[in-house]
Amino acid sequence: MQAGKPILYSYFRSSCSWRVRIALALKGIAYETVPVNLIKDGGQQLAIIEYLEETRPTPRLLPQDPKKRASVRMISDLITSGIQPLQNLSILKKVREETQLTWAQNAITSGFNALEQILQSTAGKYCVGDEVTMADLCLVPQVANAERFKVDFTPYPTISCINKRLLALEAFQVSHPCRQPDTPTELRA
Amino acid sequence: MQAGKPILYSYFRSSCSWRVRIALALKGIAYETVPVNLIKDGGQQLAIIEYLEETRPTPRLLPQDPKKRASVRMISDLITSGIQPLQNLSILKKVREETQLTWAQNAITSGFNALEQILQSTAGKYCVGDEVTMADLCLVPQVANAERFKVDFTPYPTISCINKRLLALEAFQVSHPCRQPDTPTELRA
Repeated sequence: MQAGKPILYSYFRSSCSWRVRIALALKGIAYETVPVNLIKDGGQQLAIIEYLEETRPTPRLLPQDPKKRASVRMISDLITSGIQPLQNLSILKKVREETQLTWAQNAITSGFNALEQILQSTAGKYCVGDEVTMADLCLVPQVANAERFKVDFTPYPTISCINKRLLALEAFQVSHPCRQPDTPTELRA
Repeated sequence: MQAGKPILYSYFRSSCSWRVRIALALKGIAYETVPVNLIKDGGQQLAIIEYLEETRPTPRLLPQDPKKRASVRMISDLITSGIQPLQNLSILKKVREETQLTWAQNAITSGFNALEQILQSTAGKYCVGDEVTMADLCLVPQVANAERFKVDFTPYPTISCINKRLLALEAFQVSHPCRQPDTPTELRA
């Protein structure tokens, strides 16, 4: 391992790792991946993203205007505290098997109902305005989870449209779970 | 309502409102409370705290050093994403009534096990060093929830000790759920 290169303890499927991988890619930071097979997930990795933002401010992942920054953080927190913890593996394992899909779908749709409405007033090309922000790093992994749980996207045109634009960007492609060192062969793309 | 005074839409018992109330008290910001009987809770109010920090930087709720800031945010996120969403009312209502207490206790203790260990390396008088930070604003409301759910604090001496010190501070007292405009008489203190 090259000296000085940061190490990301990462799990290919984890939304939290994915968010950080997007931030690293956007900021052009080379890193080594040490795969960790996570059972528990959480939103804690936002602390890493804020740390990256403070120590490597270019390109910005938080807008300069405090009100826009608040919008970015509100959207990020809605996803990382309000949706993801309720549909992650450690919780689903505690729910009766036959109700797991419905549980996850409910957690996601009640969050997405709020998110769709917020985005209609904050979005430009991306979640907040026309620049990629921390909110976008949170959106894409959550939409992927929603797709795994077969959520119907008809009520979420804004979410869908922003997600599609983001997935076209290189930073979102190289960081994608289907292209990580620990991605099993059958899930590679 | 006085012109220019910020309005906090608050629910006396909500951990999220409580965190923001502590921040407002610490920063000496006068505000009006509009009580809202929240059913849903979440961590979204961290966006308000970060906004306050950016627009009213004194006293600091985030340390200047980026590594310490990352510790503060990691602890905050552990509580607001990793613990609170799993033990709040909207989730408990979905769990069979006879297992609600165990569910909440498990969510809290698995988070507190991690938190106790983190605090042993970050804490001074408070969660991170000797100054009150955003992490402390998250800790106190979560400890109060743990007490409501009758969590055994024997394994958490660091959490208990920091919580006790914080509750002695005025900002934590004036913001306490037992002293809010919408606190029912029987819960007042």
